[in-house]
Amino acid sequence: MPLIGHLDPAFLEIMNDVQRLLRYAFRTENRWTIPVSGTGSAAMEAAFANLVEPGDTVLVPTNGYFGSRMESMARRAGGEVVQVHAPWGRPLDPDDVEAALQKHRPAVFGFVHAETSTGALQPDVPVLTAAAHDVGALVIADTVTSLGGVELRVDEWNIDVAYSGGQKCLSCPPGASPLTLSDGAFAKIRDRSQPTRSWYLDVGLLESYWGEERSYHHTAPISNIYALREALRLVAEEGIEERWARHLRVAGALKAGVRAMGLEMLPEDAWWLPSLNAVRVPEGVDAKAVTRRLLGEHGIEIAGGLGDLAGKIFRIGCMGHACRPRNVLLLLTALGEAVQREGATVDVAAGLAAAGDALSRD
Amino acid sequence: MPLIGHLDPAFLEIMNDVQRLLRYAFRTENRWTIPVSGTGSAAMEAAFANLVEPGDTVLVPTNGYFGSRMESMARRAGGEVVQVHAPWGRPLDPDDVEAALQKHRPAVFGFVHAETSTGALQPDVPVLTAAAHDVGALVIADTVTSLGGVELRVDEWNIDVAYSGGQKCLSCPPGASPLTLSDGAFAKIRDRSQPTRSWYLDVGLLESYWGEERSYHHTAPISNIYALREALRLVAEEGIEERWARHLRVAGALKAGVRAMGLEMLPEDAWWLPSLNAVRVPEGVDAKAVTRRLLGEHGIEIAGGLGDLAGKIFRIGCMGHACRPRNVLLLLTALGEAVQREGATVDVAAGLAAAGDALSRD
Repeated sequence: MPLIGHLDPAFLEIMNDVQRLLRYAFRTENRWTIPVSGTGSAAMEAAFANLVEPGDTVLVPTNGYFGSRMESMARRAGGEVVQVHAPWGRPLDPDDVEAALQKHRPAVFGFVHAETSTGALQPDVPVLTAAAHDVGALVIADTVTSLGGVELRVDEWNIDVAYSGGQKCLSCPPGASPLTLSDGAFAKIRDRSQPTRSWYLDVGLLESYWGEERSYHHTAPISNIYALREALRLVAEEGIEERWARHLRVAGALKAGVRAMGLEMLPEDAWWLPSLNAVRVPEGVDAKAVTRRLLGEHGIEIAGGLGDLAGKIFRIGCMGHACRPRNVLLLLTALGEAVQREGATVDVAAGLAAAGDALSRD
Repeated sequence: MPLIGHLDPAFLEIMNDVQRLLRYAFRTENRWTIPVSGTGSAAMEAAFANLVEPGDTVLVPTNGYFGSRMESMARRAGGEVVQVHAPWGRPLDPDDVEAALQKHRPAVFGFVHAETSTGALQPDVPVLTAAAHDVGALVIADTVTSLGGVELRVDEWNIDVAYSGGQKCLSCPPGASPLTLSDGAFAKIRDRSQPTRSWYLDVGLLESYWGEERSYHHTAPISNIYALREALRLVAEEGIEERWARHLRVAGALKAGVRAMGLEMLPEDAWWLPSLNAVRVPEGVDAKAVTRRLLGEHGIEIAGGLGDLAGKIFRIGCMGHACRPRNVLLLLTALGEAVQREGATVDVAAGLAAAGDALSRD
């Protein structure tokens, strides 16, 4: 079938649908809620490149891979980067955040709601945003691995800018990536004294296409936007809160199974991230051999650790469409078998029984 | 079907295919030949953001919409912009280019091989690149509307960087966009004293993913890369020179038909662009009413003029899969009818006869 053009009247209706459905998924009324024409990192760069002006102080976290990426993007936008520290695999402590905010008084504070590299969820988001707003900072939240899978309330939690990707909890092919900006964030962008350093991602210019005018800025990735609409429609059909509950229930069974089998989760329950389960690699086991076995023998792709956690954790996605009881039981069986064949001792049957219990309890 | 992951061994093979096929279509041996993770403007920005360093003088043309975009991107990269002039709808004069190069001695010279906004092809490319290299400038060519449709020889013509889009002569959904860089261009990027202002489009960082290492930089738009591979496979199956010849023959029939009908082409034959045919709007005719009729009554999308040429031309694509005799005959009939109903006098039958003659001659 020929594609519809990106300025075709029929496509403009699809754009309206996508914007409405994105607002629903983000739990926001933000007018500036759009799909960015690229994968999640493009939406991330759209957030930093637009919001950060040369000379702005930008506070970023050190507790995972994506905090470093924030740093790199903020620097390239001309920002002066300062950090708030926490170890990889743990969330930020609100007291540390507040102290860093008071000390540095940044223009922008970025944090990662769901750290894909470590499986840590950031609790206490409203406490962090309140502390940031107290010093006049705007808050950027990385919600790549939370949007559509984990409780996220952009407006209620007073997040100024949030971005995400398609291929995590929305179960959508990557290529058009959610971004939402508050009026306050958009005002900072509109009042910039120098243009955004990226033309492609300039939110002020994108206004002409995604705002009322619907005039040409750049060619949109048509088929990715169709796909995103369909993915978001499925979110709306299920209901966003029901979807969060499903992730808690199904990934909860995964966590219970992992523990009952005799393996350890990296996160404590207070910052366990249902959509990305970090499981410690048992002593003496070659993590790569396990992930190769899962892919080669079962067609299941899990990831290893990055940075400080390389070789130390398995990262097991439980996201969107794939977050289902049958996948959890398959994974537990395959993972148990693989770590045993690589020399660990685990009780697969106990793991499956515990997962079954957890699934039938709710 | 579940998507393959962007780091899956099976996908790495697909990446190799895409790079090999892109080299074929660009007529280059450039190692740095990749699809950029965004639409054509992302590939364009990748070219300018990487190649232009703060303080570099950048020479850009004024003869169409995309020269202005080059200017905007070069400025955002920190470049000092100077211009070489030609009216909208005409190519650059090599003497003017040489004079501008000698006067400004830029680090980078950008030109548009096929101006989508005006339907003008830039002839004499090897003359322009030789003049640029004489003053030590690297040359960026916008080949958005030429790659896969119009003769383009990156290596033979000594173009340093060329970028394109999927949705023009490759007939591919937009979202992964061709970019090729010579070793000389890559060396300038590698030796930058400051990082590229875009993290997402940083060619130096992309080396880790598209080079031998194949390690994570950002999530690639998987399904767009599949689509691009398929589009490029069709180019290779047809043969690139055969494809150029088809565009000349079929669009030549369109041009003959337009003229025989009594309408005028904007370009002279020396800079006629087969893939994008600019036809003058007859005196007194409302161009928008005509494009609306074509879309509403025939499902044919043509575009109007931009900038200096708004309301003055129709822009009729004849690209890739759509560049076929039946489409030319349909378009001529529908366009003739529509301009007549909007008050012009044309001879549709004569147009069709001339198109038929042109098609049967070759």
